[in-house]
Amino acid sequence: MWKGNDHLDFQEFQNHYKKLTEKRLEQAVDERIESRLKEAMLYSLMAGGKRVRPLLTFATVEALGKDAHLALPAASALEMVHTYSLIHDDLPAMDNDDLRRGKPTNHKVFGEATAILAGDALLTLAFSEVAEAPELDETKRLKLVQDLAKQAGALGMVGGQQADILGEKQKLSLEELESIHRRKTGALLSSAVYAGSIIGDATENERIKLQEFAENIGIAFQICDDILDVTGDSELLGKEAGADVLLEKSTYPSLLTLEGAKEALEERYLAAVQALSGFDSRKTKLLDIANWIVKRDY
Amino acid sequence: MWKGNDHLDFQEFQNHYKKLTEKRLEQAVDERIESRLKEAMLYSLMAGGKRVRPLLTFATVEALGKDAHLALPAASALEMVHTYSLIHDDLPAMDNDDLRRGKPTNHKVFGEATAILAGDALLTLAFSEVAEAPELDETKRLKLVQDLAKQAGALGMVGGQQADILGEKQKLSLEELESIHRRKTGALLSSAVYAGSIIGDATENERIKLQEFAENIGIAFQICDDILDVTGDSELLGKEAGADVLLEKSTYPSLLTLEGAKEALEERYLAAVQALSGFDSRKTKLLDIANWIVKRDY
Repeated sequence: MWKGNDHLDFQEFQNHYKKLTEKRLEQAVDERIESRLKEAMLYSLMAGGKRVRPLLTFATVEALGKDAHLALPAASALEMVHTYSLIHDDLPAMDNDDLRRGKPTNHKVFGEATAILAGDALLTLAFSEVAEAPELDETKRLKLVQDLAKQAGALGMVGGQQADILGEKQKLSLEELESIHRRKTGALLSSAVYAGSIIGDATENERIKLQEFAENIGIAFQICDDILDVTGDSELLGKEAGADVLLEKSTYPSLLTLEGAKEALEERYLAAVQALSGFDSRKTKLLDIANWIVKRDY
Repeated sequence: MWKGNDHLDFQEFQNHYKKLTEKRLEQAVDERIESRLKEAMLYSLMAGGKRVRPLLTFATVEALGKDAHLALPAASALEMVHTYSLIHDDLPAMDNDDLRRGKPTNHKVFGEATAILAGDALLTLAFSEVAEAPELDETKRLKLVQDLAKQAGALGMVGGQQADILGEKQKLSLEELESIHRRKTGALLSSAVYAGSIIGDATENERIKLQEFAENIGIAFQICDDILDVTGDSELLGKEAGADVLLEKSTYPSLLTLEGAKEALEERYLAAVQALSGFDSRKTKLLDIANWIVKRDY
């Protein structure tokens, strides 16, 4: 039985698994790939994101008392899907962003055609990553492929992005706003926790509780992002702050006021913590991630 | 043991499996998908292509003496990947095509943002389609996911498209041209035949011979397309003829002359037929497809 990473504090846990994930991502991009495409894929993969999704998967496996290192292929695949979605979302036809994580967006550096293809290639590579994972048996690999395709697809992340675009410059209800974010951001965070459940052999009851945690964290994450867009600076946000206001987007602060948004965030945070009440002390890293997301400096 | 479709002539075989594939494609697009995205996905899926890749998969399974109907999920997934690639290739940042299969391209009807997302959604759905296939056991599903991701990705189709864009307005060697097409068109045709091999329980030797067939058919298919661009009309081609010349693209006719390209086509056709010499009479439909591709009216 895996002894866990209890000796690691959250900072060490983050550093350790971020480094592992980044090494895996770099190795996953085959050196034989046409050089411009390869460069574009690596540019965005290595742009230094927070790696929230991978860390969620590792922490979930740890909460279930298994060796978190088994989650490496799933963690890497999730980050590939996340990265592809950022590249495509930043395109001029979509959000038309020039900056991402403080750096010029992919299409600004490589041009639109290569950016579209780099996104396509990363999405496709994510499926190789889980389907070929030597760490996992066939049944687990297949479950991960199934869930990733479901959460990343038209009923999940891509559908959320479409709804988000259609919802711009419209006054949305809180329900509509949540439905968008549940798909656009929440679906992939759920998939990260689901992957951890499968890899860590969760019971059905544990899996349900973990999904409850994921869902609340997902909404909290988005509320936080909306709050930062109003109060934060571009550096902390990793993109230009104030963009939502410029685009006249419905956000949590615009619907609930800034104070109301902060309250909603606190509620979601508490619900996430509550969902894990039946887990033993190995859930610490999951709680640390919840804290990390909510206590951001806004 | 499946008795085969020997009672069907090629026209009946085409009609039967095209209809089945189209029904499956239509059903695979979940009705709960956000309506504009769903419409865009269905618009291109149902635009009436030749369904060459699905037919190749069905015919391969039949050549191996198994029930071709087992190939339906793989056939449908391949057509989704093909369709996504057309939507993205047609975008203004890529080939900037207004017409596809005689109809306005996806972004002309739905706008660029939705076209990009519809492509993303179809690629993702393709992986659901094979990973969830009730017709196939887990091992086969996983092999299909692995091969589809490999052939559709950065070392396959997407890499070929990137190389094609970079090669525009350049004088390419025949070797460079073939390397591009082997990835851009050939990879997915290979995957279609590979899927058939797995579903039809091919021996290792049969699989190798079938791949030899696929590779030659793949090149023949592209030579034919290049020839049609010079000699054909837009209706037969399903897109605007003469586009390659306008883009100053290297093509088989431009490198080999029109006569030389026709000779190369004949050679590839014969090599494809030769690769199947060890198969029994159930290979008829594969040979019919080869004929169909090569004897197009140019």
